Amino acid sequence: MRTHARICLVLAALSASAGWRQALATGPAPLPSWNEGPAKSAILQFVGKVTDETSPDFVPVKDRIATFDNDGTLWVEQPMYTQLVFALDRIKALAPDHPEWKTTQPFKAVLEGDLAALKTDAKQSLLEIIAATHAGMTSEEFAQTASDWIAQAKHPRFKRVYTECVYQPQLELLEYLRSSGFKTFIVSGGGIEFMRPWTERVYGIAPPQVVGSSVATKFEMKDGRPVVMRLPEINFVDDKAGKPVGINQHIGQRPILAFGNSSGDREMLQYATGGDRPGLGLLVYHNDAEREYAYGPAGGLPDSKIGTFPQELMDEAEKNGWVVVGMKDAWSRVFPAER
Amino acid sequence: MRTHARICLVLAALSASAGWRQALATGPAPLPSWNEGPAKSAILQFVGKVTDETSPDFVPVKDRIATFDNDGTLWVEQPMYTQLVFALDRIKALAPDHPEWKTTQPFKAVLEGDLAALKTDAKQSLLEIIAATHAGMTSEEFAQTASDWIAQAKHPRFKRVYTECVYQPQLELLEYLRSSGFKTFIVSGGGIEFMRPWTERVYGIAPPQVVGSSVATKFEMKDGRPVVMRLPEINFVDDKAGKPVGINQHIGQRPILAFGNSSGDREMLQYATGGDRPGLGLLVYHNDAEREYAYGPAGGLPDSKIGTFPQELMDEAEKNGWVVVGMKDAWSRVFPAER
Repeated sequence: MRTHARICLVLAALSASAGWRQALATGPAPLPSWNEGPAKSAILQFVGKVTDETSPDFVPVKDRIATFDNDGTLWVEQPMYTQLVFALDRIKALAPDHPEWKTTQPFKAVLEGDLAALKTDAKQSLLEIIAATHAGMTSEEFAQTASDWIAQAKHPRFKRVYTECVYQPQLELLEYLRSSGFKTFIVSGGGIEFMRPWTERVYGIAPPQVVGSSVATKFEMKDGRPVVMRLPEINFVDDKAGKPVGINQHIGQRPILAFGNSSGDREMLQYATGGDRPGLGLLVYHNDAEREYAYGPAGGLPDSKIGTFPQELMDEAEKNGWVVVGMKDAWSRVFPAER
Repeated sequence: MRTHARICLVLAALSASAGWRQALATGPAPLPSWNEGPAKSAILQFVGKVTDETSPDFVPVKDRIATFDNDGTLWVEQPMYTQLVFALDRIKALAPDHPEWKTTQPFKAVLEGDLAALKTDAKQSLLEIIAATHAGMTSEEFAQTASDWIAQAKHPRFKRVYTECVYQPQLELLEYLRSSGFKTFIVSGGGIEFMRPWTERVYGIAPPQVVGSSVATKFEMKDGRPVVMRLPEINFVDDKAGKPVGINQHIGQRPILAFGNSSGDREMLQYATGGDRPGLGLLVYHNDAEREYAYGPAGGLPDSKIGTFPQELMDEAEKNGWVVVGMKDAWSRVFPAER
């Protein structure tokens, strides 16, 4: 048989088996930015067994659900949650239309950069800031505002837009999971409508596959146009025990892989690893002050309110066999920009 | 060039273009159970223009979202919503454990088949029936109960399981839309967890792409196992103005095609057809007493509380250019069993 005919047969066989995409997608070796070690091995072993039809742990494609926290798991969350930076920036941008903010808390504190004053009643401050910056417009207007902001705002340390402060190893993992038949979801405490405008472009995760916290909304006709209005009222907090609830509501299936980085992800990992099927729980552990940040039990910020990782979570990870992914050792490269 | 090499090149080209699945899926001609006429033409014309890159109405794949009501749009809803039949059957099945139901309304009425008595306080009756039959178990237990029931309960007139009382033309439309790059969603007033166990098998619509009404839920450890418990409390009613809210919450994108059959779908159609992009709104009109049922303005049940289709909806459809799909004329075949 001539060479070109052989090649053609191979191509035809690959198309017929529908395996060619996977073969191309996984390429030479998956997860190139993951160092050889226990975390990478655990992932490869897990994906290997759930995709192997001859394994007792085989999971059909329709049930391969993977859920990822966002802040601190897919992108940087220090020194402040990105969405909080956005909210504070919005206060500053809207201030000219609200002269009363100069003398009213929490706005006065934001405008004066007096973050200590915000902490006296942090919860109430946050609710008022959300009401002022995240409500009173249509969903589409908010999506545009978030898109415009995320396109230009830069991280104070890395001097890059926030969507370039995502973790390269996690982009590879998302792609590897999808090429292995998984559906990948974000399940974040962050605002669902703050993330959706850019998650497909950045993570390959389409809007319907984003789960997050939300404000209440209302359908109405506005200037003759049917719109969904955002109201100054919390609808759902997708954190802690809210994560399995959000997963059940949006996805309707128990994940078999869940990746988080803080005590806000504990219940999601319990849920993913506590079903009848095999389940893999993973936690990013931020122990890399040089390339990113160090916080949590062994870090420089043991009491960080952002990405809280108490010793109890470390203990529970060990007890449950969750994989603690220490950034310093597990990842050969942290950000895409290092390519 | 030899024939087999030519064939190989064609196969390779098809795989490379990723168009081969579509070419195979659309086959000889789409929508074989749709008669030639205005409804079929409107669908083909719409899908043609939004998938034509040279058209000013072209819509990129990522924004091709289609939403379908379920009851009366994808399957039969007369003489009673299927989920209500399920709830009444559950009352009967659970009655031996609840001797007090023999003397307590609304359970007494259900057990005695006295549906008139239920109507004296229909809303309160329904809430109590939902609390007794749809709550107090885990999501997974409820899914199993719904699966077991749907596998054997039969429609009183058609004497087939309910999942065989789905509309063949709509199965073809769902498949045609998916082969044209659409994501297809159910957006139903029915219970989200009642539908999810069987929608993938029956409609090709996976659990995350099902939007519906829901009860409140709570994550907890039950006998050492992490579960989502269903509570006797309504969380969300996915009907009327709730449909765009549910769509925004779950999908996060404005649909460009919406298909309903009653005034419960009015706001969903307004939303889908009132955006910046082209939008197609469609309504099944049940005017076929012989093959299915006739209700609505010209039907034998003008005041039907199930699938309410008042004259005002017909007027609004005409005003907005929504396509009224009269079953009698538009569909050459109603059910898959007629194949």
